[in-house]
Parts: sequence; structure tokens; C-alpha cells
Amino acid sequence: MITEIAMLYIKEGSERQFEIDFSTASKYISSINGYINHKILKCLEQSHKYVLIVEWKSLEDHTIGFRTSPQYQKWKEILHHYYEPFPIVEHYKSL
Amino acid sequence: MITEIAMLYIKEGSERQFEIDFSTASKYISSINGYINHKILKCLEQSHKYVLIVEWKSLEDHTIGFRTSPQYQKWKEILHHYYEPFPIVEHYKSL
Repeated sequence: MITEIAMLYIKEGSERQFEIDFSTASKYISSINGYINHKILKCLEQSHKYVLIVEWKSLEDHTIGFRTSPQYQKWKEILHHYYEPFPIVEHYKSL
Repeated sequence: MITEIAMLYIKEGSERQFEIDFSTASKYISSINGYINHKILKCLEQSHKYVLIVEWKSLEDHTIGFRTSPQYQKWKEILHHYYEPFPIVEHYKSL
């Protein structure tokens, strides 16, 4: 299992709409082969910061399976305009 | 419930010893009131980067309960010398 983590910085003032749209977009990521689960959490110290944590069966389920899918096009369309700067996405494994 | 997240950058070359010592130090954090669980994951893209994720019942269980405890002194003594730079610790809540 691989954990994808992205720190998301949302344009200030659009946090509430981002949260609504994130909820809509969730169905696109969760329909991908190899998807296990995901969550988004809101930072207490910085109100426009969130963390997205997604568990995948393998790295390629994210980097190939999701990113080359039609669902990713919808995900991008709904969410990418909220980010400033655009997030760095990293992958993690258990020790 | 509050999730503490810290991105940890470990001095290069000391990753293996850090992992061993982290395992030893874990008993100190897990003995604190309000501690729910924790995990440490290793970054695939940057070999000296890790993420620490700890779930607490409340923010104060971490910021007061743990940080003013004798267990935190042991945790610091075992782990803090591995970090470069010293990590920024943040707290997150569910939407």
C-alpha cells in the first residue's frame, strides 16, 4: 500500500466553496482501480491549508491509473483552480 | 479528534538509525492521555523525508499533555537531533 499526501493551499476566501466542490469531486477518485480510501483535513494553524491523504494499492494506481483516467479530467476541472500554489504531491510507504 | 502532522527531514545518512530509534521512542508518545494512534511513513521521492501522523482526542492532549510530560523529554532526547531543519508541526481537523 502507498499513501499519497498533498498539502493544499486554497486561494483565500474560497475555502467554503472548495470544501463543497471537493465533496463532489470525491466520487471521481474513489471510482479508480486500486483506490482504497481518502480523506481531506483542514489545518488549524492556517485556515487556507488542507491536507489530502489517499491510500492506493500501488503507486501506479495513482500515477498512471488515476492520472490518465477520464475521472482525473473531471477532478482537475473541479479542483485545480482553487490551488495557489499548485500542490506538490508525494507518496509514502510504511517502514 | 485532531490529527497532528509533521514532515520530518532527517540528516542524510542517519535514516536507518532514526527508524530504529523512532521505534524505541514510540512507547513514550503512546502512553499519553488522549493519544489515539500514530504512524510514521517514509517518502518515496525524497529518501530522507518522513511524515509523522498522530491522532489525539484533543489539541491540548498534544500541545499541553504530551509537551509538558516527562515522556516528551525522552522523546526529544531520542529523536530531535535527527531533524534538519527542525520540523513544523501542524494540527488538522475533519471537515
